[in-house]
Amino acid sequence: MKQSLLFVPTLKEAPKDAEVKSHKLMARAGLIKQTSAGVYTYLPLAQRVLRNIEKIIREELDARGCSEMLMPALQPRDLWDESGRWDQYGPELMRLKDRKERDFCLGPTHEEIVTHAVRDYINSYKKLPLALYQIQTKFRDEMRPRFGLMRGREFIMKDLYTFHENQEDLDVWYQSMKEAYTAVFKRSGLETRIVSSDTGQIGGDEADEFMVMSEVGEDTISYCMSCSYAANQEFSGLKEGDACPRCGGTIKTAKGIEVGNIFKLGTKYSVSMNAYFTSREGKREPVIMGCYGIGISRTLMASVEQHSTDDSLVWPEELTPFDLHVIPVNYRDQEVIDNVDAFVKRLEMDYRVLVDDRDERAGVKFKDADLIGVPYRIVIGKDFKDGKVEFFDRYEGVKEVIDLESLESRLKTLYNKD
Amino acid sequence: MKQSLLFVPTLKEAPKDAEVKSHKLMARAGLIKQTSAGVYTYLPLAQRVLRNIEKIIREELDARGCSEMLMPALQPRDLWDESGRWDQYGPELMRLKDRKERDFCLGPTHEEIVTHAVRDYINSYKKLPLALYQIQTKFRDEMRPRFGLMRGREFIMKDLYTFHENQEDLDVWYQSMKEAYTAVFKRSGLETRIVSSDTGQIGGDEADEFMVMSEVGEDTISYCMSCSYAANQEFSGLKEGDACPRCGGTIKTAKGIEVGNIFKLGTKYSVSMNAYFTSREGKREPVIMGCYGIGISRTLMASVEQHSTDDSLVWPEELTPFDLHVIPVNYRDQEVIDNVDAFVKRLEMDYRVLVDDRDERAGVKFKDADLIGVPYRIVIGKDFKDGKVEFFDRYEGVKEVIDLESLESRLKTLYNKD
Repeated sequence: MKQSLLFVPTLKEAPKDAEVKSHKLMARAGLIKQTSAGVYTYLPLAQRVLRNIEKIIREELDARGCSEMLMPALQPRDLWDESGRWDQYGPELMRLKDRKERDFCLGPTHEEIVTHAVRDYINSYKKLPLALYQIQTKFRDEMRPRFGLMRGREFIMKDLYTFHENQEDLDVWYQSMKEAYTAVFKRSGLETRIVSSDTGQIGGDEADEFMVMSEVGEDTISYCMSCSYAANQEFSGLKEGDACPRCGGTIKTAKGIEVGNIFKLGTKYSVSMNAYFTSREGKREPVIMGCYGIGISRTLMASVEQHSTDDSLVWPEELTPFDLHVIPVNYRDQEVIDNVDAFVKRLEMDYRVLVDDRDERAGVKFKDADLIGVPYRIVIGKDFKDGKVEFFDRYEGVKEVIDLESLESRLKTLYNKD
Repeated sequence: MKQSLLFVPTLKEAPKDAEVKSHKLMARAGLIKQTSAGVYTYLPLAQRVLRNIEKIIREELDARGCSEMLMPALQPRDLWDESGRWDQYGPELMRLKDRKERDFCLGPTHEEIVTHAVRDYINSYKKLPLALYQIQTKFRDEMRPRFGLMRGREFIMKDLYTFHENQEDLDVWYQSMKEAYTAVFKRSGLETRIVSSDTGQIGGDEADEFMVMSEVGEDTISYCMSCSYAANQEFSGLKEGDACPRCGGTIKTAKGIEVGNIFKLGTKYSVSMNAYFTSREGKREPVIMGCYGIGISRTLMASVEQHSTDDSLVWPEELTPFDLHVIPVNYRDQEVIDNVDAFVKRLEMDYRVLVDDRDERAGVKFKDADLIGVPYRIVIGKDFKDGKVEFFDRYEGVKEVIDLESLESRLKTLYNKD
């Protein structure tokens, strides 16, 4: 892919309202562009990373028997009246009327829609379990949108809903989804900690949050430094350094960014919205539900927060928008252009390659490349006519001049290709 | 994939408001579920087909130098005031206020947002051309939502915007995108006809629409039966059987479903929204734009319309949600289950397999399979213990009993695998 066509509007200065490192860097690296408070366009580089995160999520969920669907953003009031949430939800719920003055909201979550979708179908225990997810845009009219993608008003979520005939089956799936989440965040290059938490207004019994430890996190969590156990309810009132009620270890307090959460919803929606099935014993029972979210746009931001300095970024392996960044320091003479293009074409047979074809000074190209964050960089300079390039492994911070044959075997090793 | 986990709520009867064949069939086949007038959930089978259409679009556009991004649905009034469309647009535009009483709309198209995104960047001819697209949910509050996905209020579009330094460059890209669209619809198994058309309220010079000929189309188009030329403006007033002004051929009138359109927008948005660049001659000029849409959910529906009868559907090769549908007529004894599962596991190494693991009568399974529309079906009956299955090629309408070795080579031939 030619960088001139990709649209990467890098900036020298971050916008004034950007307070945290990742927000500043995402704006400067040409990843996002704000259109109104808390509402962003994901520019091509960010979109490529989002699609990588989505791919990981789909793989981990599909492998565990989940099915993907796509529900609408426009949700009719009648379904929200059934669940009671139309009146319960505050001004975060974006409401609107259609041309016939009927009430709608823009979905912040989809419990009502998914329960409506399945309730006629799940008439028997034979139709259970079901695990349905979507990757979709959500809306929440935050009082104070801030920190870029961290607290936005329009954001991308993966939301999953599971349906069960009994508590034991929910427990099995809940555990399986916990493992899926752990795998998703690990593959996304994020270190997360699981915190047991309140269920808040979604209701239900048990819940866990996946937190990325970060100075800019908005949630304060407490965990035991000895046994790593973290439970906000149990530790409420305890301060850093206090003894832990569980094992006598010491309490540590830190900030976290919540990137995922899983809830045992129970029968809140099935009872209020009449989603009943006939059990193995022939009894009519409300279906038992679980719900599971991942903030995809927030995961993108958390990844930038974890993998950047003030002026540079290196994407984790599975999230990087390109495998290789080829930078010809002189891309003017037709002969050089032809040779570089042929070289890139060969690389593109095996790798996703970004080539900086712009007529810019080398310094400009390098600064932009630091922001763009591709982990392996190939600089094409004067030695190229002698079959040599500079190879920069940004994970290791090592630069070396290398001949094209060695480059090939190096890349094969790095990407496990033969 | 096990059918019991996929969530395919097939129905015996279509909903009462379904008027056209494809809408009835999509509801009966468990592809879509209405949540309010003109607003649908895409159930797992439909989502798989949508993702196939999206993959084709991405491949054809990326190969021609386009970059994918993702713009927000929530659009602030101030940008629509710049273009003048806030006042021009009728009640189809869904409007809402946020908690601070600021005006927003839900985007029916994204000219304002994309022009805002690029205008600071494209300060020089060196930054042009650019071709930016997204696959995203759109909103239009239709007076009479109908025909299922054909005229919905929330729908999935691919919208692409191109930016050029002069008319010649726009012409080159316009032609290239026309070719991309032709490829997209051909690969999607749709026969389309290109019709030159009015530009309507988007404004600009030249426009073409991609129409799928269909009895249920909402647009009437006229074309010459001799030269295949179709131009609504030129033919306005001409009736079926009239002589064609171009070549003397005969005019034919037919109904069409518009699945794509391409416009030469010109400078309407760049002038009103101040998107100027410095030309090669050092002059400040408004950037020249093109815009290009594909109705993705509508393409799904047009495909169902073209490839179905009242009770059955066969997906085109590149759209089918699965390659193979395996139907064990008896899936009860543990020994049979184990053998079938092992057989499916081997197939899944090379193909996307749906296996009907439900405890249902064979007749029910076959009827559902006809609706689900997978082109190749493998029925596992009593002969399976002797190494034989029934293979049903639904494209050809041919069923035959076949041994497992022949099945393997047959599938390799059909899918060009070796």
